[in-house]
Amino acid sequence: MTIRRYVKPEILRREIREGGFTGTTAGQCPGYVQANLVGLPPKYAGDFLTFCEKNRAPCPLLEVTRTGMSVPEIVAKEADLLTDLPRYDIFVDGVYAETVTTIKGLDIGGMVFFLLGCSFTFERALIERGVEIKNVKEGKNVSMFRTSIQLEPSGPFSGEMVVSMRPIHYTRVIETVLVTARYPLAHGAPLHVGAPHLIGISNLESPDFGDPVSVEGDEIPLFWACGVTPRVVLENARIPLAVMHHPGHMFVTDLRDGDIQDRESLDSPTNSEL
Amino acid sequence: MTIRRYVKPEILRREIREGGFTGTTAGQCPGYVQANLVGLPPKYAGDFLTFCEKNRAPCPLLEVTRTGMSVPEIVAKEADLLTDLPRYDIFVDGVYAETVTTIKGLDIGGMVFFLLGCSFTFERALIERGVEIKNVKEGKNVSMFRTSIQLEPSGPFSGEMVVSMRPIHYTRVIETVLVTARYPLAHGAPLHVGAPHLIGISNLESPDFGDPVSVEGDEIPLFWACGVTPRVVLENARIPLAVMHHPGHMFVTDLRDGDIQDRESLDSPTNSEL
Repeated sequence: MTIRRYVKPEILRREIREGGFTGTTAGQCPGYVQANLVGLPPKYAGDFLTFCEKNRAPCPLLEVTRTGMSVPEIVAKEADLLTDLPRYDIFVDGVYAETVTTIKGLDIGGMVFFLLGCSFTFERALIERGVEIKNVKEGKNVSMFRTSIQLEPSGPFSGEMVVSMRPIHYTRVIETVLVTARYPLAHGAPLHVGAPHLIGISNLESPDFGDPVSVEGDEIPLFWACGVTPRVVLENARIPLAVMHHPGHMFVTDLRDGDIQDRESLDSPTNSEL
Repeated sequence: MTIRRYVKPEILRREIREGGFTGTTAGQCPGYVQANLVGLPPKYAGDFLTFCEKNRAPCPLLEVTRTGMSVPEIVAKEADLLTDLPRYDIFVDGVYAETVTTIKGLDIGGMVFFLLGCSFTFERALIERGVEIKNVKEGKNVSMFRTSIQLEPSGPFSGEMVVSMRPIHYTRVIETVLVTARYPLAHGAPLHVGAPHLIGISNLESPDFGDPVSVEGDEIPLFWACGVTPRVVLENARIPLAVMHHPGHMFVTDLRDGDIQDRESLDSPTNSEL
């Protein structure tokens, strides 16, 4: 089966809404920003908003919907977050319950939705410059690790940062830091390079999430704050009912990658969060 | 003996010119750009200019004087390069001959002078942000190493890059990359982090130039293109007569550090030169 490639987000979202597309959004609508989704009962929305503001590297906020509204008016004003993601994961009391292709039927009246930037944006910027992203090239999921880096807590939301690891050829490491720093709304610059054990990672061959990706002798592993962090935080918080996108099955916005580029960004997650 | 601290470059340069100051310029005139000096017979000037343009990370060009002119009209139009550096090193046939405090008496009619940016600029930017520069704090010279990184040759000028090494606390490494990248005319971003052996450095405790500076367990060694590179290149080229500043005894310009800041720089020496 060949996977159809979509160019325009509104076309892909309509196809998803009508049930014709339930796959990963990786590689779809190149140049458009994709987003992680978190949906919470309004009772928890204030604390989670503060959590995102305190932990911008793992939780870069693109938009928060108004209570009970499922239209993201800033990033895709014609879309509906109840129907326009290919797959959703439902969590009950912090425990994964099931994966569904729509949440329209769920009793989630009054939910607040958070859209958080995702690393697809900076991966594309790197690939366009000829920097090889090994897991993309090998068709694997990125390697992700739990770390010892404490998150800034907010209400019931707390825990440790999850990071993604990408092995980069040693001649492109500094360039990779500089290019990804321009996308603070897509996790931004790496938060670590050089000594994984200092952030609590003991074995690069055994990721906690995703696939193992080998690091060759001429490659340096770089570590970025990861969008799986809020998933772990939600599990810790044991919220009665929560919704997230299914990993790799993101919300595709109408924003262009260039719209969230900040050419002067000096944001450095290592400074504030380690 | 206490060392007098100067604020204004023109006052320091006058004191140097009159023989009252022959020490290192490190820490003098904070906020003003200091420069490496290279003086060559005009016959070699074209090739060396091209060499600088091909190897911008180690040889970031601030100004080239016109043949026979010793006034740097762009960076300090009241100064005289024959008298306004505290110490000069003279090279004959590529071999160090002597250190002098003026080159006014030397038969160097028709020489061309090159002023190249220096790392004092980015060190100051880091210290202002609270990033500790260990060798500065310990009053040592920075550690410098010969590498296996080939320079782009031009005429008689060729060789391998020399790098300076600074151990940075692991929580400030990415910030250090981003901040120094803003100063491409002061060597810019590091050219390497992570695996010194990949650039031909086998033992961090035995620098080829400068002082040994220890790397603790919570520090990561970062490597920058170094202004000692042209010194090694000049030696290789065996030019009949050449002049350089004596290490640490720089030309202090009227430029402010902010004048050479490039907030959007993505220059990455690793990409083009490794």
